[in-house]
Amino acid sequence: MRLQSLNPGTVSIRDPFWSKHVDLVRKAIIPYQWDAINDRIGDAEPSHCLENFRIAAGRSSGTFYGAPFQDTDAAKWLEAVGFTLADYKDEELEKTADEVIDLIAEAQCGDGYINTFYTLTNPEGRWSDLCEGHELYTAGHLMEASVAYYLGTGKRKFLDCMCRFADLIIDTFGAEEGKIHGYPGHEEVEIGLIKLYQVTGEEKYLEQAKYFIDARGVGENYFMKELARPGFKRIFPEFRDYSPEYSQSHLPVREQKTAEGHAVRAMYLYSAMADLAEACEDESLKRACEILWDNIVKKRVYLTGGIGSSGHLERFTTDYDLPNNSGYCESCASVGLAMFGLRMNQISREAGYMDVVEKALYNTVLAGIALDGKSFFYVNPLEVWPPACLPATSMSHVKNVRQKWFGVACCPPNIARTLASLGQYIYSVDLKNPALYVNLFVSNESSIPFEAGSARVNVQTRFPYEGKVLIRVTELPEGGMDLYVRIPEYARNFSLTVPDKGAGQAGEDDGKGYRKIHLDTDTELEAAFDMPARYVFANSNVRADIGKTAVMRGPLVYCLEECDNGARLQEITADIQAPLTVEDSDLFGGCKIVRGKGTRLVRSSDETDTDSPLYSEIPPEKKAVSFTAVPYPYWNNRGVGEMLVWIGASVQ
Amino acid sequence: MRLQSLNPGTVSIRDPFWSKHVDLVRKAIIPYQWDAINDRIGDAEPSHCLENFRIAAGRSSGTFYGAPFQDTDAAKWLEAVGFTLADYKDEELEKTADEVIDLIAEAQCGDGYINTFYTLTNPEGRWSDLCEGHELYTAGHLMEASVAYYLGTGKRKFLDCMCRFADLIIDTFGAEEGKIHGYPGHEEVEIGLIKLYQVTGEEKYLEQAKYFIDARGVGENYFMKELARPGFKRIFPEFRDYSPEYSQSHLPVREQKTAEGHAVRAMYLYSAMADLAEACEDESLKRACEILWDNIVKKRVYLTGGIGSSGHLERFTTDYDLPNNSGYCESCASVGLAMFGLRMNQISREAGYMDVVEKALYNTVLAGIALDGKSFFYVNPLEVWPPACLPATSMSHVKNVRQKWFGVACCPPNIARTLASLGQYIYSVDLKNPALYVNLFVSNESSIPFEAGSARVNVQTRFPYEGKVLIRVTELPEGGMDLYVRIPEYARNFSLTVPDKGAGQAGEDDGKGYRKIHLDTDTELEAAFDMPARYVFANSNVRADIGKTAVMRGPLVYCLEECDNGARLQEITADIQAPLTVEDSDLFGGCKIVRGKGTRLVRSSDETDTDSPLYSEIPPEKKAVSFTAVPYPYWNNRGVGEMLVWIGASVQ
Repeated sequence: MRLQSLNPGTVSIRDPFWSKHVDLVRKAIIPYQWDAINDRIGDAEPSHCLENFRIAAGRSSGTFYGAPFQDTDAAKWLEAVGFTLADYKDEELEKTADEVIDLIAEAQCGDGYINTFYTLTNPEGRWSDLCEGHELYTAGHLMEASVAYYLGTGKRKFLDCMCRFADLIIDTFGAEEGKIHGYPGHEEVEIGLIKLYQVTGEEKYLEQAKYFIDARGVGENYFMKELARPGFKRIFPEFRDYSPEYSQSHLPVREQKTAEGHAVRAMYLYSAMADLAEACEDESLKRACEILWDNIVKKRVYLTGGIGSSGHLERFTTDYDLPNNSGYCESCASVGLAMFGLRMNQISREAGYMDVVEKALYNTVLAGIALDGKSFFYVNPLEVWPPACLPATSMSHVKNVRQKWFGVACCPPNIARTLASLGQYIYSVDLKNPALYVNLFVSNESSIPFEAGSARVNVQTRFPYEGKVLIRVTELPEGGMDLYVRIPEYARNFSLTVPDKGAGQAGEDDGKGYRKIHLDTDTELEAAFDMPARYVFANSNVRADIGKTAVMRGPLVYCLEECDNGARLQEITADIQAPLTVEDSDLFGGCKIVRGKGTRLVRSSDETDTDSPLYSEIPPEKKAVSFTAVPYPYWNNRGVGEMLVWIGASVQ
Repeated sequence: MRLQSLNPGTVSIRDPFWSKHVDLVRKAIIPYQWDAINDRIGDAEPSHCLENFRIAAGRSSGTFYGAPFQDTDAAKWLEAVGFTLADYKDEELEKTADEVIDLIAEAQCGDGYINTFYTLTNPEGRWSDLCEGHELYTAGHLMEASVAYYLGTGKRKFLDCMCRFADLIIDTFGAEEGKIHGYPGHEEVEIGLIKLYQVTGEEKYLEQAKYFIDARGVGENYFMKELARPGFKRIFPEFRDYSPEYSQSHLPVREQKTAEGHAVRAMYLYSAMADLAEACEDESLKRACEILWDNIVKKRVYLTGGIGSSGHLERFTTDYDLPNNSGYCESCASVGLAMFGLRMNQISREAGYMDVVEKALYNTVLAGIALDGKSFFYVNPLEVWPPACLPATSMSHVKNVRQKWFGVACCPPNIARTLASLGQYIYSVDLKNPALYVNLFVSNESSIPFEAGSARVNVQTRFPYEGKVLIRVTELPEGGMDLYVRIPEYARNFSLTVPDKGAGQAGEDDGKGYRKIHLDTDTELEAAFDMPARYVFANSNVRADIGKTAVMRGPLVYCLEECDNGARLQEITADIQAPLTVEDSDLFGGCKIVRGKGTRLVRSSDETDTDSPLYSEIPPEKKAVSFTAVPYPYWNNRGVGEMLVWIGASVQ
């Protein structure tokens, strides 16, 4: 039996670190994105999303505008609203969302089909371009949104719409004769179908997801056949030389050993594979997931949990190829990595997966959004030199300031729905044989609906700035429950104690990275660990990081910013023998900053003389300096400037 | 009065370093390129160049194939043949070339127009797309070829064809009413027109070049007007968001202060500007050239004389942005940099320009071609890690092995014509007031046709491996001549002596980087200088090179290759206090290699254990090693492997 996440509304987050971000969803992002999908943001690219639906519903005249997947802007907004309404009643917001759902229902075709791009621009062309048409991708996001809205409000209308659409997809795609033997160019519908199965219990949705997974990459590549069809016209001709790796369709999924292609596509695929591996008790699929995860974690992920080394095509490249300044590290890809890791944790009960999930959430996902919730990074490299962020160059994907909105607006709403559903990452639970896994250390008040009766749990912590977590369990199911507390990879001197019972260690290691204790009475526990600021080093196969070090504390990666350290950050070399010190700071609404000692390599003439020669025989000199590092997710909240994660290291 | 280069055929190169490359033009490249433009190279992209001309001439049926500038394949082949025939009579080659010229003449339209792309695909569309149509660019290359062929063979047919085409261009473009007020999207016709002027003496060609230069970037941008025209269809839609900087049309040329846009376009423009500055005694134009040159040399050129930091659009980016692994450094751009520098030398008589020209020729231009003359690099980065050279990524422009031919085949023939005309770079001369400037140290036998009578000069040297140059002057014009010998920037203890007269220094510094001596009788001189292998360091504004050093000797940049030093070159740090040693080697037909001492940063587990963690708190250790560096132009002649120019440096 797999573990599962708790439903929206079950986990109430009241946390000194996360609440300021999570609350942004309700207070800033949902209203802001509402303006965005209504084209009310002045100097940002228009979305036209709701207008497309209005035209498709016959309420408005005009022509479609936007990307083929423009409908997903509304889907992700509704998903975030669904999660939010589960936590905070807001009648006006719910009324607005209901109206959007009415609009979507009106735009739905008689047979259940929903997609304004095809309905408005090419109604005959449905399903003719699985490679780039994004109909199944869009369907998947609408399905996810309908499930969130159902769980958040109890209202079925949107869910019913999406079940009708899913039924049409089942009638349309499959191995049977007369059906289309294709699969999505951008994976996502698989996740949507699995969620429909999870809330409706209808096996057919699970079966359809399994068809899409099993068919992928088998035999002649479906997309190459589409592209070769006479008269086929590509939607994105600029992506020349389409290769099946791009969409993970180069091999049957069980034969894929390395993470390839577009990173977001890959994560959505692997997440569905993990779900199916458990639901269908499919060991070969589970093994494939483990191999792919291993490849990512050991060879293809940045320290920040970012993935996708190539700006061109937002994709994986090769093992150990992790350039810091040009890497893509799409915010959505790290959302996807967290989704994949969570599922792997839930099917394996191994804590190690959550170390990676935690890094992705605390660093790249959070870096994707400004502290005020109003601007966003799509791309999250580990080194930014503002003058090189030039349009129409190889670096044009890297922005030196968060953007208000994007024409392809996947990241902002993806971050919003992730923050709004953060509770799913905090706990994994076994509702049948009562077990509660504490995965993330976030202050919250929760009620866990075990089959044998509910448990109430209250967590208080100042993590990630302090390594102390108070867990108060004040109700228990019949027969008690097993509590598992994750021992993070970076924790030193980890202890779980029951203060009422004195200072001894409580529970025992479960062999999978958790400290386990059986509770059959109300109990107050304290998990405590040291997490000094530390220098980390990359595997020396990583060319970009050789001779360099990065500063971390707990799951947080730290970075140097120009406003704290002056320009030309590349001149700084850390003295890794000297201790790092941690200090309280008022920055970013309160955080801890880290200071270290080192040197700057300088040729003073280069600093002051703009005519100083480009090359010469004069070596630079070393000058002692100290440096200040701030949490990576908060970089670029104080204006445009240089940023650097991997700094020079003096190795003895 | 400007200096000029000597005509083809005047300088016979018989040099231990260069002859093996220069002779390739005749023995390998011209035959190979002949096969290429006849589509006889098996697994390379077809050229179709001559077939296009045959179709346009009515000799063959079929349809145009190739890029809009495909005609330039023939032009550059003919240019190399012209230069070669000047040196080596070859009746069969000349007959073949004459036949190609006959074919081009047949394909020429009644009014003088030559361009098979427009003639065959869009005859009504002539001059309708100066932005991307490349008609003027193609015309310029044909003009240059016709001049070379005329100088090499004395035959005028091709030259006359091109004068007719130039006359049509004069009738078509200009400030006058009724003419097109446009200018080329890819500069090159300016150089062609100036060369027509130089051989025919017809001022109108100079005037037309001046029109194109003066009109560029003035008022509303011509290309943006074209692109905005209703129904305008781009030839290269993949280059979205056209920006005038790309074609140096963002400002009037005299107001441009930084090298911008496509690097080859920029070099051809600046070369023509330098020519015109002198020919028209235009001080403002000369000043613009000086400012642009300074910007390149002080902020935007690689150590190898490579230019263009961005793979996307093959373009300049910003000051000090010189990434080693992703930089473009197109072979053609360094050809262009040599052209620009030579002209600046000739109009200023400053030796410093030739330091840069020499680096470009000895390093990037030469790296562009394999030792056997049969494969070519288009892109010449300073660091190559073969596994990352993947198609459909941000690194797809970087190849880990030289290619046989290219669909856009500008580089191979551009290298060929440069090698075939290397003599133009060796000397700059003042034919009126007899002065001979020795710029490059290349063994040769030359006859200099001064107005007051010719001089014979014989140079013997083993440069760039030895710093000794014997110069024997055995004929002199009336009144003698001034001999100027360049003092290279890297020379130590430079001396010019007349051995017959004992050991004292001969001549005097001219204040512009030359040692000057007046000769009025047959004389044997010896220029000698030390050029130990040396470590060089980049300006610390260059982020990519901070904490690094490169090895040079004379003008040659040295690099580390995997086959000499093992894989994971990034682990090597040079001990810059330890001396570099220089050794004779049989590699690459005989060269000198350089050895140094240093350390490797290693974590042995990373080398042997493919499951070694990607990140950990364990710092790497240092292990003493020595390393071997080989001349950069010869890298990748021993199979696929890693290559590195900038290596770690231990700074005290």
